[in-house]
Amino acid sequence: MKKTAFCAAILAMGLAASCAWAFEPLPTTSPETPADNPTTEAKVALGKQLYFDKRLSIDGTVSCNSCHNVMGSGTDNRPVSVGVGGKHGGRNAPTVWNAAYLSVQFWDGRAATLEDQAKGPILNPVEMGMPSAAEAENRIRAIPGYVTAFQQIFGKTNPVTYEHIAQAIAAYERTLLTPNSPVDRYLKGDQNALSDAALRGMKRVEQIGCTACHTGPDFAGPAMPVGQGFFQKFPIYAENNPYVAKYRLMDDDGRYAVTHQDADKHLWRVQTWRNVALTAPYFHTGSVPTLDEAVRVMARSQLGLTLKDDEVADIVAFLNGLTGEFPQQTMPSLPQTPNRTLTPQ
Amino acid sequence: MKKTAFCAAILAMGLAASCAWAFEPLPTTSPETPADNPTTEAKVALGKQLYFDKRLSIDGTVSCNSCHNVMGSGTDNRPVSVGVGGKHGGRNAPTVWNAAYLSVQFWDGRAATLEDQAKGPILNPVEMGMPSAAEAENRIRAIPGYVTAFQQIFGKTNPVTYEHIAQAIAAYERTLLTPNSPVDRYLKGDQNALSDAALRGMKRVEQIGCTACHTGPDFAGPAMPVGQGFFQKFPIYAENNPYVAKYRLMDDDGRYAVTHQDADKHLWRVQTWRNVALTAPYFHTGSVPTLDEAVRVMARSQLGLTLKDDEVADIVAFLNGLTGEFPQQTMPSLPQTPNRTLTPQ
Repeated sequence: MKKTAFCAAILAMGLAASCAWAFEPLPTTSPETPADNPTTEAKVALGKQLYFDKRLSIDGTVSCNSCHNVMGSGTDNRPVSVGVGGKHGGRNAPTVWNAAYLSVQFWDGRAATLEDQAKGPILNPVEMGMPSAAEAENRIRAIPGYVTAFQQIFGKTNPVTYEHIAQAIAAYERTLLTPNSPVDRYLKGDQNALSDAALRGMKRVEQIGCTACHTGPDFAGPAMPVGQGFFQKFPIYAENNPYVAKYRLMDDDGRYAVTHQDADKHLWRVQTWRNVALTAPYFHTGSVPTLDEAVRVMARSQLGLTLKDDEVADIVAFLNGLTGEFPQQTMPSLPQTPNRTLTPQ
Repeated sequence: MKKTAFCAAILAMGLAASCAWAFEPLPTTSPETPADNPTTEAKVALGKQLYFDKRLSIDGTVSCNSCHNVMGSGTDNRPVSVGVGGKHGGRNAPTVWNAAYLSVQFWDGRAATLEDQAKGPILNPVEMGMPSAAEAENRIRAIPGYVTAFQQIFGKTNPVTYEHIAQAIAAYERTLLTPNSPVDRYLKGDQNALSDAALRGMKRVEQIGCTACHTGPDFAGPAMPVGQGFFQKFPIYAENNPYVAKYRLMDDDGRYAVTHQDADKHLWRVQTWRNVALTAPYFHTGSVPTLDEAVRVMARSQLGLTLKDDEVADIVAFLNGLTGEFPQQTMPSLPQTPNRTLTPQ
C-alpha cells in the first residue's frame, strides 16, 4: 500500500500526524478515555439510559437516539433531523457508531470530545430544546432513580451536573463500536472476506487518492491529538462542477462558522467510511440519496475525476465491506417519576 | 371482598360477563391469542423490530415506541402525543403494557384486538402518517431483511401484507406484561408486600365502589368476549362538578364518535390501573398532571364523592402497589437498506 504517497500527502497538508498505513482494522476496544472520565460498567449503563431518555428534551419527544439510532445505522437516515416542535436541523445527523475514534465531533469539529459533543444537542433549540444546562440538570434531579445512580457513580457532592450527564453519555458512546467488518477481517488475514469487486474497489480508492484522507481506524483520518480535527475542504473542485448547485454543496460555510477564518470556509471534518453504506442520505446537506451518487460526487469534487460506472460499483462494493458487526445490546429501563410527569403541559 | 355487590353492579349494567372477584393477580403468561395469529418466538422478534421502526412513518420520525415507550411506562407521559410534522394527537396515549388483557383497544374501543389496533396509528395522519396500507407494505418490502423474516414466518406467498405487519406487532405486544407487582404478591399470599397505607387504600377502593369497574386481571373490567368492550360513562356526575370545565372532561364525545349512538356519548373503555402511577398525565385529555388529582377527579366524577386528603393518599399508595415488574428486553437491531434511504427527501 502506498504508505509513502499517503505520508507525503499528510505532510503536504502541514499536519504533524503520525504516518500510518491507509487501511487499518478497527480496534475491538474503546479508545483512550479522558483522564477525568474513566469508563465503568455503571457509568455506561447510566449513559445508555440518558441516551434514550426523551425527558432531556423540553417537550419529552426527542432523545439522543431519535437522530442517532443505535438500533440501526446510528443516524436517522433523513436529509436533516426533526427536533422538538417539528423543527428541522441544519445538517445531516452523523453516525454515532465508532464516533469514539473520530478526531473531533460535529461536521465542523466544534467539539473536541464526545463529552463536549453530548452537551450540544440538548440545548440546541432545533434539537432537544432545553433552555439551559440548569434546566436539564433539574429534569434529571427530579427523577429519583437517576439521583441514586449519579450519586453512586459521581459521588454524593453535587452528583447531577450537566458535565456528569455528558460524561455518562460519552462513556456509553465509547462502547458503540462495530468491529469485524469484511474489510477488517480481510486486513487481519481472511483472504475470502471480500468479493472481487470489493477488492478492486479497495485498490481503486488508494489509486485515485481517496485514502489520502480516508485512512485510520475510522477511515476518517490519521490518529491526531485530542481535539485536533482532521479537516478537508469540500468541494475542492468547485468550478464547472454540476454537483455544487444540484446538491447545494456550498450553501453552508462549514468550519468557518466556528472559527470565522477565511481559510476555514467549506472545511469539514473528514467523515468516516465505517458503515457508510447504511448512513444514506449523504453529506452535510443529506442531499445525495444513494451511495453510488455520493461516490461520483466525491470523485468529481475532491479529485476532479469522473468515474466510470464499473469503477463506482467497485468502490461501492468496497465501502459495503466496511459495514461492521453491531453489538447485541440490552434495552435500558428508564427510571420513572411515580404519580406525576415531568413533561410540561 | 364484596363479590356480591360487584356482581350486582355488573348485572345492573346488563352485561353478560362472568362474575369474578374484584382483585385478581396478573397472569405471568400471554392471554389467549387469536386462532389466526399464534405467537412464535420469530414473530415476536419481528414484531419488536417493527414496533421500533420509524420507517413505518411517512417521514421516518415516529415508531409505535415513540408514543408507547416500553423503556418506561408504555406511554410518552405527555398530555397528547406528537406525531409526524409536529402534529398533536387528540387523546392521551394509553400504555401498551398489559394491553393484551384489555377487552378492546383505544380509548373508545374502536379496535377489537391488538392486531386491529396496530393498523390504526400507522395510517393516522397526525401519528405516523402513511398514506395507505399499500405504502406501508411497500416500505417494508423494500427492506431485504424484513422480506426474509416475513417469508420465514408467514410463508412465501405474499408474505409482507399490512395484516401480517399488524399480526407481528400484536404478537410482540402480547409479551408486554408486568406481573409480580406488590398487589399481585399480596394476593398470592405475601402479607408484607403492601404498606399499611396501601392496604387501607385497597379496602377503600372496594368500599367506595371503584372496583365495580376496576376489576379483572388489568383492573380494567371483567373478562369479556373478544371485542366486547367494558365501557363506562365519564363523568357520570357532571353537574356542579368543577373538574368538568377545569380539565375539559366533556369536550370529547368518546365512544359516540365510533357508533354515533346517543347512548355512547362520553362512554370510554375503562382504563387499566396497572402501572397507573407511571402513566401521568391522566384521562383521555391528559389534562390532569398528578395521580392524587386523578383520584379526586374520579371519586367526584364517577361516585359523587369528595375524598379527604388521607383517603386520597391511601388510594394513591394502593395504586402504586400495582406497578409491576418490567421484563428486561434485548434491543432490536433493525434490518437496513444498504446504499440508500427509504425516507423521502
